[in-house]
Amino acid sequence: RLLFGTSGDGGARPLDLPVEAHSAAAERRFELQGHRFEAAPEQLRQPRLVRVGLIQNKIPLATDAPVTEQVTALHERIKEIVEVAEMCGVNVICFQEAWTMPFAFCTRERLPWTEFAESAEDGPTTRFCQKLAKQHNLVVVSPILERDAAHGETLWNTAVVISNSGSVLGKSRKNHIPRVGDFNESTYYMEGDRGHPVFETQYGKIAVNICFGRHHPLNWLMYSLNGAEIIFNPSATIGKLSESLWPIEARDAAIANHCFTCAINRVGTEVYPNPFTSGDGEPAHHDLGYFYGSSYVAAPNGSRTPGLSRTHDGLLVAEMDLNLCRQVSDKWNFKMTGRYKMYAEELAAFVQPNFVPSVIRE
Amino acid sequence: RLLFGTSGDGGARPLDLPVEAHSAAAERRFELQGHRFEAAPEQLRQPRLVRVGLIQNKIPLATDAPVTEQVTALHERIKEIVEVAEMCGVNVICFQEAWTMPFAFCTRERLPWTEFAESAEDGPTTRFCQKLAKQHNLVVVSPILERDAAHGETLWNTAVVISNSGSVLGKSRKNHIPRVGDFNESTYYMEGDRGHPVFETQYGKIAVNICFGRHHPLNWLMYSLNGAEIIFNPSATIGKLSESLWPIEARDAAIANHCFTCAINRVGTEVYPNPFTSGDGEPAHHDLGYFYGSSYVAAPNGSRTPGLSRTHDGLLVAEMDLNLCRQVSDKWNFKMTGRYKMYAEELAAFVQPNFVPSVIRE
Repeated sequence: RLLFGTSGDGGARPLDLPVEAHSAAAERRFELQGHRFEAAPEQLRQPRLVRVGLIQNKIPLATDAPVTEQVTALHERIKEIVEVAEMCGVNVICFQEAWTMPFAFCTRERLPWTEFAESAEDGPTTRFCQKLAKQHNLVVVSPILERDAAHGETLWNTAVVISNSGSVLGKSRKNHIPRVGDFNESTYYMEGDRGHPVFETQYGKIAVNICFGRHHPLNWLMYSLNGAEIIFNPSATIGKLSESLWPIEARDAAIANHCFTCAINRVGTEVYPNPFTSGDGEPAHHDLGYFYGSSYVAAPNGSRTPGLSRTHDGLLVAEMDLNLCRQVSDKWNFKMTGRYKMYAEELAAFVQPNFVPSVIRE
Repeated sequence: RLLFGTSGDGGARPLDLPVEAHSAAAERRFELQGHRFEAAPEQLRQPRLVRVGLIQNKIPLATDAPVTEQVTALHERIKEIVEVAEMCGVNVICFQEAWTMPFAFCTRERLPWTEFAESAEDGPTTRFCQKLAKQHNLVVVSPILERDAAHGETLWNTAVVISNSGSVLGKSRKNHIPRVGDFNESTYYMEGDRGHPVFETQYGKIAVNICFGRHHPLNWLMYSLNGAEIIFNPSATIGKLSESLWPIEARDAAIANHCFTCAINRVGTEVYPNPFTSGDGEPAHHDLGYFYGSSYVAAPNGSRTPGLSRTHDGLLVAEMDLNLCRQVSDKWNFKMTGRYKMYAEELAAFVQPNFVPSVIRE
């Protein structure tokens, strides 16, 4: 009860999903979980029930398979999970970070990994997701490695948001890039330059805080100040590095920002052809470590769903009444009491070369 | 292991405390816990071991006892716990929020509660703490209700920081004031006007984020950007309102800011002479709810100590190597990757009357 916050004003409860969805998931060998978050009835607003789907998965092929085969296998795997999401009435679905490729940035090699980069606007994966979105009538959040041909072939870590109409709504770029352990991502791409866009969909206002941005409370905050009711956090992170932080960060962000957050991590170990070192004194090796899955949804009242498995592909379906966001905000008032003008000034002072910390000495 | 983050680079381990301290604690009827956090050895810096003490306690007398008797009883209770803290080698000690009084703001009555307010500089409680600090050679963080006679008799929720030399280092005021449930504190005092001071003591740089500021990630951040290595969060909060948030927030702040955080809550139920309502449709009643204790310390690597009891007075002693803060910062680099200039600009835009959220529509 205390662990998952089911006390007080409503935690996650089980959500019944169709028998055929459970059978299909079992047949296709992935875990299926259903949960729901309720809100109090209001007089002027109807409940705004949205079903969100989180997908976590292993890479189906070895990392030395031809690029096109790897991408195609991933498309196929996702397609068969999304079909089950539709059976479960999912309205918005999000895949894991850089979902069309192994998380190969640990290698610091260019080819073949940069060949996985695609145009966000009309690459093969975006076209694939447009079909999915239209066919299954759901909004798709598709985090990919983006190649921006119009801006000097720059690579970005980008989430493409596709409306359930099939049209590309826009994209959101990873704002904070790690330089930690094997996450040598700053070798490949830079900090996002698109600020904190929020996408107004038929199913609520959504935003995407990609991976390392989870550690930056200001990143969550700005999406929320722009109106996000659901913030997705597609990630790729390993047990040794972050597993004890995982249950804390996205959940704290849901609390602090009066919104729903959806933390998604990939699963399994990905083995690379060439050995590489990790800056930790250990011998060269062929893998980055174990991606521990454990995807979950947290609600503005601090409650959360259980996590998906540490070891299996999975689809987590969470029904949420988006009215809960404003209800919790009206109760706790973190934005009203946020004093953002003071912080804007203090942060502006902090970044000046002549900043003097406020320190009192005896 | 996953719950308290003892995996990876070092979690809290048991700290042996003297037998006489355990006996004295048992005799004086409070719980005593000891924990320690280690850091890796460095070449240029010696370990900077600091022992911090967190005290949580019930009010010893009924709320209708004469003001002076209540204050004196609290002074005596704290004194007998601080004596044990000295036996445990504590260097810095922090008491709970508004520790010299019942948390009476739920009543919305003035007298006698405003009579508990004192001068931060030379009130009886500050003088009492100066003696304690000098006698036991420890830094004292003393959160009180402050009466600021020099500024129109204004009341503030203030923490006074007293050096182990016995001199008053300065004070820090509560920056975010709740308007939630029975926490009608904005009836009594306003948001702090002293920014985010950090106190450089013989035992490291410390700061005080009082109670409701725990919900505001920017408040933690600014103390950290001013150099705080340990941030205390003296609180008064009840089970029905916040218990499922309690393990998340201060711990996330330790992670996000590469520092130690110390969350302190009072214990027990405080009963008031006159009935009051709570804005929740329930009948008038005489108490605010159950203060659930559960004080704990979180480390920059995301690990934490167990909590003190939900029901008993307690002293938690945590030995920490402050070198861990910079070690974790150098590993994760949240400040280096923080992009504070961007956020200063975005927050400055947000507070303008003509702010237009960044929303993308189909």
